[in-house]
Amino acid sequence: MAYKAKIRVTLRPSILDVQGKAVQHALENLGYSTIDSARIGKYIEATINEEDHVEAERIGDEICRKLLANPVMEDYSIELEKIN
Amino acid sequence: MAYKAKIRVTLRPSILDVQGKAVQHALENLGYSTIDSARIGKYIEATINEEDHVEAERIGDEICRKLLANPVMEDYSIELEKIN
Repeated sequence: MAYKAKIRVTLRPSILDVQGKAVQHALENLGYSTIDSARIGKYIEATINEEDHVEAERIGDEICRKLLANPVMEDYSIELEKIN
Repeated sequence: MAYKAKIRVTLRPSILDVQGKAVQHALENLGYSTIDSARIGKYIEATINEEDHVEAERIGDEICRKLLANPVMEDYSIELEKIN
């Protein structure tokens, strides 16, 4: 059994998101006046070969803290989906 | 009323994900042998000031096609969340 971990890493709200601002301005220039803000983050899909849901969750959390996210500047959220 | 569009842009399965491979190898080197694959995409959160859910959905889809995703190489999915 395996789990697919769907991980979203976003900049903390207090951190200026330059890339997001650029996208927002590009959207404004394209005529999308109803779009107030845009923030850009990372999305990671990882397959975890693990029987146990709790253990898969622990691994997902650990790899976020150790490698995928910068805990000083970024938040992350994990969603586990069982596959086969 | 406004909607928060949570947009995930991922490389199509047939496209080689070099960044994902690098992350997977880094995880292997850190001792995570149960992680089979990792693929990296983008995550975008945009606030759409729109009364109508259908219209907000249409705008979300349009900005993905026009700006946020490259339809030749990437897939996208949109999740709308009502805010205030």
